[in-house]
Amino acid sequence: MPLRLEAKNPGFVADFAALVAAEREPVTAVAAAVTAIIADVRARGDAVLAELTAKFDGVDLDAAGWEIGPAELDAALNGLAPDLRAALDLAATRIRDFHERQKPTGNDATDAAGVRTGVRWSPVDAAGLYVPGGRAAYPSSVLMNAIPAVVAGVRDLIMVTPTPGGEANPLVLAAARVAGVSRVFRVGGAQAVAALAFGTARIPKVDVITGPGNAYVAEAKRQLYGVVGIDMVAGPSEVVIVSDGKSNPDWIAADLLAQAEHDPVAQSILITTSAAEADAVEAAVARQLETLPTAAVASASWRDHGAIIVIGDLAEALPLLDALAPEHAELMVDDPDWLFARMRHAGSVFLGRHTPEAAGDYLAGPNHVLPTGRRARFASGLSVVDFMKRTTFLDCGPAGLAAIGPAGAAIADVEGLAAHAASIRLRLG
Amino acid sequence: MPLRLEAKNPGFVADFAALVAAEREPVTAVAAAVTAIIADVRARGDAVLAELTAKFDGVDLDAAGWEIGPAELDAALNGLAPDLRAALDLAATRIRDFHERQKPTGNDATDAAGVRTGVRWSPVDAAGLYVPGGRAAYPSSVLMNAIPAVVAGVRDLIMVTPTPGGEANPLVLAAARVAGVSRVFRVGGAQAVAALAFGTARIPKVDVITGPGNAYVAEAKRQLYGVVGIDMVAGPSEVVIVSDGKSNPDWIAADLLAQAEHDPVAQSILITTSAAEADAVEAAVARQLETLPTAAVASASWRDHGAIIVIGDLAEALPLLDALAPEHAELMVDDPDWLFARMRHAGSVFLGRHTPEAAGDYLAGPNHVLPTGRRARFASGLSVVDFMKRTTFLDCGPAGLAAIGPAGAAIADVEGLAAHAASIRLRLG
Repeated sequence: MPLRLEAKNPGFVADFAALVAAEREPVTAVAAAVTAIIADVRARGDAVLAELTAKFDGVDLDAAGWEIGPAELDAALNGLAPDLRAALDLAATRIRDFHERQKPTGNDATDAAGVRTGVRWSPVDAAGLYVPGGRAAYPSSVLMNAIPAVVAGVRDLIMVTPTPGGEANPLVLAAARVAGVSRVFRVGGAQAVAALAFGTARIPKVDVITGPGNAYVAEAKRQLYGVVGIDMVAGPSEVVIVSDGKSNPDWIAADLLAQAEHDPVAQSILITTSAAEADAVEAAVARQLETLPTAAVASASWRDHGAIIVIGDLAEALPLLDALAPEHAELMVDDPDWLFARMRHAGSVFLGRHTPEAAGDYLAGPNHVLPTGRRARFASGLSVVDFMKRTTFLDCGPAGLAAIGPAGAAIADVEGLAAHAASIRLRLG
Repeated sequence: MPLRLEAKNPGFVADFAALVAAEREPVTAVAAAVTAIIADVRARGDAVLAELTAKFDGVDLDAAGWEIGPAELDAALNGLAPDLRAALDLAATRIRDFHERQKPTGNDATDAAGVRTGVRWSPVDAAGLYVPGGRAAYPSSVLMNAIPAVVAGVRDLIMVTPTPGGEANPLVLAAARVAGVSRVFRVGGAQAVAALAFGTARIPKVDVITGPGNAYVAEAKRQLYGVVGIDMVAGPSEVVIVSDGKSNPDWIAADLLAQAEHDPVAQSILITTSAAEADAVEAAVARQLETLPTAAVASASWRDHGAIIVIGDLAEALPLLDALAPEHAELMVDDPDWLFARMRHAGSVFLGRHTPEAAGDYLAGPNHVLPTGRRARFASGLSVVDFMKRTTFLDCGPAGLAAIGPAGAAIADVEGLAAHAASIRLRLG
């Protein structure tokens, strides 16, 4: 049974605060092991990759081939059933179109003092994309990570993915081909992340590493943040659905379970103005779980982390949404824009009753790599700018420096930085 | 003596690679101590702040006051000499104007399939600004960190700064007042960073923490990345100056020393097409060091990390600049835009002979918080968006979902996520 809270109850504030503060991210003691793997890869390079791949995946890289070549990617794409091929193409096109709109524009302007300033955006040279191996490999994840890099203009997009038992997921390879990945290597784990960060004889060094992975992969990215850029530190996924008592309980239940089936520590929360809707949704979840193939995971998530919160009116949802700062917020109400305009924190918002999160997960356009665990307070989903950087520029010229230089030198004086002051004053003559 | 390299020499490639790879960032074994401090602050809150502030700063916070109030900030501002007050005001105005141009715009569009997608930007609720205490406290650093947050629309801007011996730097307080800081607390170190990240009874919890600090502060920010947003992991500063043999050697020397006077591990590099200019600059540096008040630091930096590289023509500077990916690049040549258009990686670029880096450090407009240690390959300087986050949104509506839903469900099927597929198909009827 999920948690049930009623906003009108006296204990609600404390109960809700406990829900917000509940720790869902498992503490994993992998830091020391990952530190050792990173140091080993830095020292011995490809030899470490070969050893660990043999040990964990049972693959002899020298025999099987380190790289999955273009022919194998093409074969995977051509082997897709036509409707699936069309679905991947539609997803790629829509994701590309959405991300094209995110491309930042620079600026370049000269002000009244004669000082020219501006910003120039440019792509990183190379990006690394981590893709988990085996059955949990998701083609949608390849599209969502790779396409923003391609749109950014990244020249080299290097994918790493473990192939346990030598098996690569053909859907993942097809998605890599559709997305425009440059090269694919059969390596995984913290060692693959380290190889991308420092480069080895075989694996190119990249500037940014994104993509999901297990605790070792996540910790490797965390430890290498600063050596390379990374996407956000990700925790378990969550959805908050707000409904006004007029939504189809089965639709709400399916959306709650879509979140819950990802992970036993995923979190699905319904906020509703109707106690009757709360009851109906709870019953619908129980009913759908009876036949859901992913019920083992989904029922654990719903039981341990699920919650239904009954509120008096929709405005009461606003502080709850902002406190939860959810990765996904579905607004299943008559006027979703009213709520959206007033809420402050969420990774991605799904407006109206006909917008299931799953549409956004796969192909609507917005990225599905989003800040989790209340990080939407300060963090954003993956975007084109994660694969770009901003260079600012300045041209004072003699007139501009004459106008602003004396003030700059005055500040340098009080900061005690004599060469700073001199570098300005020498030019002022 | 700084390193001298000549591009035409046979060993140049290896020598330059060694210069690029040289590690300037001191390895400090503070991680365990910082982990303990963070855990202690999380458990005991303000008591830890009071104890550590008494121990390290010799200040009894309950007696001295935890907070530096508006009256004290006003007094600091009003106590400034008029020319310095004017200089701070000019700097604040110019920095504000530059950062106003960085405010991102969202988008909201409905496509041919009837699917509405878009992006909304919004500020974080609260930001924390770390300012080092004592004599190394820089008012320019307060402006450069605080103003982007104010421009972003951050409601609460909380500054923490240690006051060793009870002394606060009046210039820093004046700058805080000019920049629009909300509240100032007399605490510092890793414990102040932890207090901002988790909140205590006295210190408000914030969403993003920026600002320079010692090894403990930097490590605390690194460890708390993900709990809060942070600015880039910063290393020692550097400048690369490119000259064509026609620049004033004294100007170049002053610019090299302006970088060097920051830190013994700062790095100043001159790339010049003229061996004669190289000699003249080296002599000018030696001459200026004789009277420079900051010579102790600057000479150590120049001796241990400085370098002069003589190249054949300006185009040869391009791969060197990109490999160094410097925090600051000064292009002291006739046509700096030619070089700028062709180089790929730098934090900030200073165009022409009349643009000393110091003008940008203080008041030209662009931010002086920039990626160091070759991180300009993938990272950007501090900006307004570091204090904002992007929320994506989606509204399929019945028609849009009918158009794209089946393809989404098909991908969900092959990913084995049955509730995802059901959440779409239930709506398709």
